[in-house]
Amino acid sequence: MNTAFTLPTAGLKPSATLAINEYCQQLKTEGKDVIKLGFGQSPFPVPPSVVDALRDNAFQKDYLPVKGLMTLRAAVAAYYQRIYQLDCEAEQVLIGPGSKELLFLVQMIYDGDLVLPQPSWVSYAPQAQLASKRFHWLPTYAEDGYLLRPETLEAHCLAHTDRKQILMLNYPANPTGSTFDEKQLSELGAIAKAYDVLIISDEIYGDTHHQGAHQTIAQYHPSGTIISSGLSKWCGAGGWRLGTFLFPTELSALLNQMAVVASETFTSTSAPIQYAAIQAFEGGPDIEQYLRESRLVLSRVGQEVHRLLEEKKVGCPVPKGGFYLMPDFNHYRAFLNEKGISTSAELCRTLLEETSVALLPLSDFGMPNDFLGARLSYVDFDGTEALSLIAKDPTAKASDLAPKVIEGIQRLINWLP
Amino acid sequence: MNTAFTLPTAGLKPSATLAINEYCQQLKTEGKDVIKLGFGQSPFPVPPSVVDALRDNAFQKDYLPVKGLMTLRAAVAAYYQRIYQLDCEAEQVLIGPGSKELLFLVQMIYDGDLVLPQPSWVSYAPQAQLASKRFHWLPTYAEDGYLLRPETLEAHCLAHTDRKQILMLNYPANPTGSTFDEKQLSELGAIAKAYDVLIISDEIYGDTHHQGAHQTIAQYHPSGTIISSGLSKWCGAGGWRLGTFLFPTELSALLNQMAVVASETFTSTSAPIQYAAIQAFEGGPDIEQYLRESRLVLSRVGQEVHRLLEEKKVGCPVPKGGFYLMPDFNHYRAFLNEKGISTSAELCRTLLEETSVALLPLSDFGMPNDFLGARLSYVDFDGTEALSLIAKDPTAKASDLAPKVIEGIQRLINWLP
Repeated sequence: MNTAFTLPTAGLKPSATLAINEYCQQLKTEGKDVIKLGFGQSPFPVPPSVVDALRDNAFQKDYLPVKGLMTLRAAVAAYYQRIYQLDCEAEQVLIGPGSKELLFLVQMIYDGDLVLPQPSWVSYAPQAQLASKRFHWLPTYAEDGYLLRPETLEAHCLAHTDRKQILMLNYPANPTGSTFDEKQLSELGAIAKAYDVLIISDEIYGDTHHQGAHQTIAQYHPSGTIISSGLSKWCGAGGWRLGTFLFPTELSALLNQMAVVASETFTSTSAPIQYAAIQAFEGGPDIEQYLRESRLVLSRVGQEVHRLLEEKKVGCPVPKGGFYLMPDFNHYRAFLNEKGISTSAELCRTLLEETSVALLPLSDFGMPNDFLGARLSYVDFDGTEALSLIAKDPTAKASDLAPKVIEGIQRLINWLP
Repeated sequence: MNTAFTLPTAGLKPSATLAINEYCQQLKTEGKDVIKLGFGQSPFPVPPSVVDALRDNAFQKDYLPVKGLMTLRAAVAAYYQRIYQLDCEAEQVLIGPGSKELLFLVQMIYDGDLVLPQPSWVSYAPQAQLASKRFHWLPTYAEDGYLLRPETLEAHCLAHTDRKQILMLNYPANPTGSTFDEKQLSELGAIAKAYDVLIISDEIYGDTHHQGAHQTIAQYHPSGTIISSGLSKWCGAGGWRLGTFLFPTELSALLNQMAVVASETFTSTSAPIQYAAIQAFEGGPDIEQYLRESRLVLSRVGQEVHRLLEEKKVGCPVPKGGFYLMPDFNHYRAFLNEKGISTSAELCRTLLEETSVALLPLSDFGMPNDFLGARLSYVDFDGTEALSLIAKDPTAKASDLAPKVIEGIQRLINWLP
């Protein structure tokens, strides 16, 4: 039988982040001692009280409302009130099977061009392609930690007044670990507001801010910002698949239309998972402790990896949140060229072959092919052990918390001349 | 802020099946004694051994492979080997967050026209619209229980040789409760094979066949049939959101492309749910007993409702599987017209207002607006109690198993002249 694919889907290849994870699993099965600094999954277990809540709700079998269980939507709104002092209500929350699915639906539904800072997370651009959407890359600069400058956004808006612009803003950022300070958010928010830009603020790493000091741009452009988040990163529950969107009341028509499309696609999010998520968003002393200790571990490991790389003249922005660094190997361009390496994809493939360290090529994040950099995810360690260690000794060293990660960095450093 | 929606999504309204459930909930909250014969959710609990498996796997937090957990894919393949004697392997199985999501993705990806018997389940046509797909309704006839005739398919194929045709075939069928016998499947399969039609065989109600005698068309057109199913109906786990596709090896390129698009949208299906589903597909004496007793309850209630309606000259096909009937009120057309009712939507609205019995209008299933019929779902009863009752007394009456359903039917009958 002939198989023909529709145009928007035909050119797509597997998501790099997921593909590298599956490839690493295969190498591990073959007995290779792979250090997985490619895949970005939280290393920490789901907090025990949240796992207990799933256990207690294992019997829940009913289809839940398309927009999500009202009690959960209320818990999410209360969380945004409590942590970020946002004025919001349950009705503004949409629950989905992962924020990635919601990010796809909003691209599919909302008419306008997608605007992406370069680099950005791997899936935004392919989603735009699937949704037959036009998209634009905006340049960023190493000296800003690759954070988008307000003047860059403004110049783009001035040049594109004919169509609605949708800015996808992710912070703390994947792949850089950078994040905006309050002044930067207020300036970017003001530009977005002035030019009527819709911001999709992907704050999935918000609660992993290493100092617990995440701020949202929604406070500076409240009527035009959707906050995207979920359980995957701060709650260690990536595999559970639960994402959240918080809409301004001004965009309730968009929320309703997303629910209409959801009712013809994913229907609703898994019921036992939704009941358990209430516990996570309601929080409590155990979850606060979990967050405090997770952040301390991530900060300790991230700072040490950063220090080791900088010492070896591999530049990267200082990590502020999440669990990524964006090492730049351009200092070693001559050495790499001699080895036949002239793209980030070749760099990562050779590194995996010669050191068994997996990184992701930055070309998958929208950087030019010849930018010799990678995304490094510093989470290949036992999160349960690390949390237990840091609880006993808040001064625990990175090499004790994450020995494989540090070994991986040593392998990279030794591989360089 | 202006909100504009993209063309394929703009005209869509909420799925009728989900919308009526939410509306009924609202009426119930207002204190109305609503009998919900609209929403099609299994009335039975998830089998205890499957709930236990979810409890035991509540800690599972990892992102699973896009195509699904290999152990689960193997369990699904083994289930098809065991129950339907299909020659298949784990690699042919794709897991998704509900079969509805997978049905949408295949429409989005596979290039061709969608062919739907009239009537068909409410979501196929809107999905085609979302995927910007051309679709065709094929007529069916009351005397065949509204099952598609092979000659109707053949005539359609002869008239559409220019484009690939994708036949969506659902049996036991929603909204009719009808299903094909072996001869019918073999004839339809032969036509599909001869004209190179891709069949998406939606067998989500397969295991609810009242005699446990479901057969699949895949045996007659093996290289061109995808079997769609999941946990929602036979396993009572609609709210869990787990669907399965079984591909022929000839369509592995399509499976792979679906996984590529899945990796940019839903990512993977909830991990604890996938681990628990292994138990369901592996089966065992408790699950066989659960199925036997579920079928007995459904058959008993379905037959009685059918008898009562036919006695009142409300025609409908004899129920063979699933939990639906398709009552046809055209015998009462004069009476209904006098009440100002000339469409199925008006019929259902008036019935809900005047008898508090909720049915779904057949116009949502692709029937002409003036066809005075509805979909009746006979599952508004306590499934746990019904299973317990039938286990004690296999001759238990429909009025004891499903008192509210029978009361609803009496209300309908009393409402008619």
